[in-house]
Amino acid sequence: MSETFVVIGGDAAGMSAASKAKREDPEMDVLVFEKGTWVSYGACGMPYYVKGAVNELDDLVTITPEEFRTERDIDVRTGHEVVAIDPESETVTVDDGTETFDQPYDHLLVGTGARAIEPPLDGLALDGVFTIHNMDEADEIETYVTDQSPETAAIVGGGYVGIEMAEALKARGVTPSVYEMLPNVLHPFGKPVAEVVEEHLREQGVDLRLDTAVSGFTGDERVERVHLEDGSEPADVAIVGVGVEPNVGLAADAGIELGPTGAIATDEIGRTNVTNVYAAGDCAEARHVVTGEPDHVPLALTANRAGRAIGQTVTGSPTPVGDIAGTAIVKAFDLGAARTGIVDEARARDSGFNPVSVTISAPTRAHYYPGGAELTVTLLADKRTGKLLGGSVVGREGAKRIDSVAMALHAGMTVTALQNADLAYAPPFSPVWDPVLTAAKVLEGRLD
Amino acid sequence: MSETFVVIGGDAAGMSAASKAKREDPEMDVLVFEKGTWVSYGACGMPYYVKGAVNELDDLVTITPEEFRTERDIDVRTGHEVVAIDPESETVTVDDGTETFDQPYDHLLVGTGARAIEPPLDGLALDGVFTIHNMDEADEIETYVTDQSPETAAIVGGGYVGIEMAEALKARGVTPSVYEMLPNVLHPFGKPVAEVVEEHLREQGVDLRLDTAVSGFTGDERVERVHLEDGSEPADVAIVGVGVEPNVGLAADAGIELGPTGAIATDEIGRTNVTNVYAAGDCAEARHVVTGEPDHVPLALTANRAGRAIGQTVTGSPTPVGDIAGTAIVKAFDLGAARTGIVDEARARDSGFNPVSVTISAPTRAHYYPGGAELTVTLLADKRTGKLLGGSVVGREGAKRIDSVAMALHAGMTVTALQNADLAYAPPFSPVWDPVLTAAKVLEGRLD
Repeated sequence: MSETFVVIGGDAAGMSAASKAKREDPEMDVLVFEKGTWVSYGACGMPYYVKGAVNELDDLVTITPEEFRTERDIDVRTGHEVVAIDPESETVTVDDGTETFDQPYDHLLVGTGARAIEPPLDGLALDGVFTIHNMDEADEIETYVTDQSPETAAIVGGGYVGIEMAEALKARGVTPSVYEMLPNVLHPFGKPVAEVVEEHLREQGVDLRLDTAVSGFTGDERVERVHLEDGSEPADVAIVGVGVEPNVGLAADAGIELGPTGAIATDEIGRTNVTNVYAAGDCAEARHVVTGEPDHVPLALTANRAGRAIGQTVTGSPTPVGDIAGTAIVKAFDLGAARTGIVDEARARDSGFNPVSVTISAPTRAHYYPGGAELTVTLLADKRTGKLLGGSVVGREGAKRIDSVAMALHAGMTVTALQNADLAYAPPFSPVWDPVLTAAKVLEGRLD
Repeated sequence: MSETFVVIGGDAAGMSAASKAKREDPEMDVLVFEKGTWVSYGACGMPYYVKGAVNELDDLVTITPEEFRTERDIDVRTGHEVVAIDPESETVTVDDGTETFDQPYDHLLVGTGARAIEPPLDGLALDGVFTIHNMDEADEIETYVTDQSPETAAIVGGGYVGIEMAEALKARGVTPSVYEMLPNVLHPFGKPVAEVVEEHLREQGVDLRLDTAVSGFTGDERVERVHLEDGSEPADVAIVGVGVEPNVGLAADAGIELGPTGAIATDEIGRTNVTNVYAAGDCAEARHVVTGEPDHVPLALTANRAGRAIGQTVTGSPTPVGDIAGTAIVKAFDLGAARTGIVDEARARDSGFNPVSVTISAPTRAHYYPGGAELTVTLLADKRTGKLLGGSVVGREGAKRIDSVAMALHAGMTVTALQNADLAYAPPFSPVWDPVLTAAKVLEGRLD
């Protein structure tokens, strides 16, 4: 008799797992329950839909539910919310909007994702105040901007969502103010990146307010003002982008253990503490490649990869979900900024390292070749062992060079080994020493 | 008493070594003998000078001889040719153009570089027939094109010099014909890259002639025609770019051993078989990171890195020159093409591997994000062990992604490990799975 693989949540982790399982074992029954209406969508593209760089929200969808059903024989049910997991009987309880039913599983994947954090601000319910974490919200923002033609926008949070939305709204003729509580934007990218991005945001006409807490919004039905500690300012639309938190309630209620980050604890192949139950994607932890410790970095590739691995595991071939380096990249108007591994010295010390870092700026092309840009590269290493811990880059081109650093982290390389890597050089593409190599050379000189 | 470090050849390897030695030990006497007039120049930039993208030949020079003397206290002597090395007495014999003298050394670096191969073609001495391997030649070509306004160019050899010169001459209004003896251009990059480049060259108006041998040139003082097996064609200027060969005569005459490639054999720290004599750069072998065998890949970064390491070694800190992956990148009009490691299956078999490869095409950005391009990625691995052997990429953007593959080679990674790397994703920069990861995923499925 064929086995049943039930997947909760129809985005990156869930649909990757469903597709892989069905491809590896076409006899397996694969069911996906998605409480919303969209599956397999590129959430990271939503700011570009608001911006107008992507014409249709549907363009962000890779594969429709109908295609999953007809082309991949995966039973995708949108509008179906799993409301309970019973590990004893190995069933889930599903609410299809009119009634509930029980669905047995042989293997279960919890891919419930994350949600935008709603901070305790006044006036979050006003029209024109949005978070942006799902397709419906992206649609609502786009419609609001089109209908209301706002002149000013209050963006709460200078993380990547805030910066991407500042770019999107500026392109729509709105003047964005970004309010960040911390002294710098893009906190996980570190100060050297933040300072370059901050200067650029200001050049681009973003009203950037660091060390600035927002207390709430007021208005007559629609948002009209944003309130700060020392007064209020006009805001015709507001975006609250202060981070995400994993959706773990369903799992926790079923006795599935959470890890130290608050996301679902998983092992090397994505198993939870409950037999035959896996977790992946934005709701789950993963192992950090540098520290070996559990971490929660909700990003698309991690979700896709872990889902795919679990899809293979449930068909009988146990497959590691892979470690994460926390590699991330963001476009900030004309800049690209990227980071990987550990870039924060305090965090490095917490993990038992003795960090030393270097920040250099170097051109992305030969000095005489037209069109290059300065790339600012930061590398962090352990002073005693020379082990590379992480890095960041920022510049008008070349931000994907972070991948060289990420590869070095996965390989457990020292700074010396990185410095000796034979990277590609020709005048239109790089100076003889790629900026990443230059940073490694300088950092090598600061090791014990 | 301070030691004397003598360097033969004032380009990448030589000047890197001289600079590093002087920085590490300011008391050391550092002498550089360069037979030409230029030192420390970006030979790879010469095609862009001919093209007009670089205004002055001097722009290609990083540091002038005068600056080396005054700012770095390095005794650089241009117009000085070393004509003999005597390992017994540890002296070199130098011809300064008017007389010869002997110079003792404590450490000697042979950085004599390579020269353009001159194939046995008729008419090589005609005006308007050039090789391009040094600054004087670049200057002569630029002047000839400016003065003679050629309509057609015959370029012999479809390697990177030939392709870069085709682009350069086309930009100057000359119609280039490229004659390549082999069935494909860019032989070391492999067929998947070559085929994409060939189609693009033709789209760009290059008259590309594969499987076509040139026998020589004729003309009345100046070149007028290029001769093929089956006739002749007009050629108002000709560039012969069929590769380079190492300058090893001086070393060989002194009893310095050559390796299997014909370049100077060196050990892990760049030593030759002769005590206190090192070799680096285009005249020397290096160890290939995949095969562990000696190889000769004359490229700028290899020369710079080895020179720098030797500069450190001679001051008392033995420093490995680093293994090479043979990573190379070339601009071909609007395309970037790159390669690293072993991309040729026959060569992989020669080195004891059982090669399996895959070629995929994937977009460089999210499918919905504007402005992306197709990147064609080839990866080669050993079927039994999964060890990554090499790869290539080609596309209108993203060719520097070869660096991820190069890093994986240096780390000795398997295809599975590469596939699990946490590379950077955001819609403007990459699809969720970077094209390199997609290739690794597909290749993983073809391993034993």
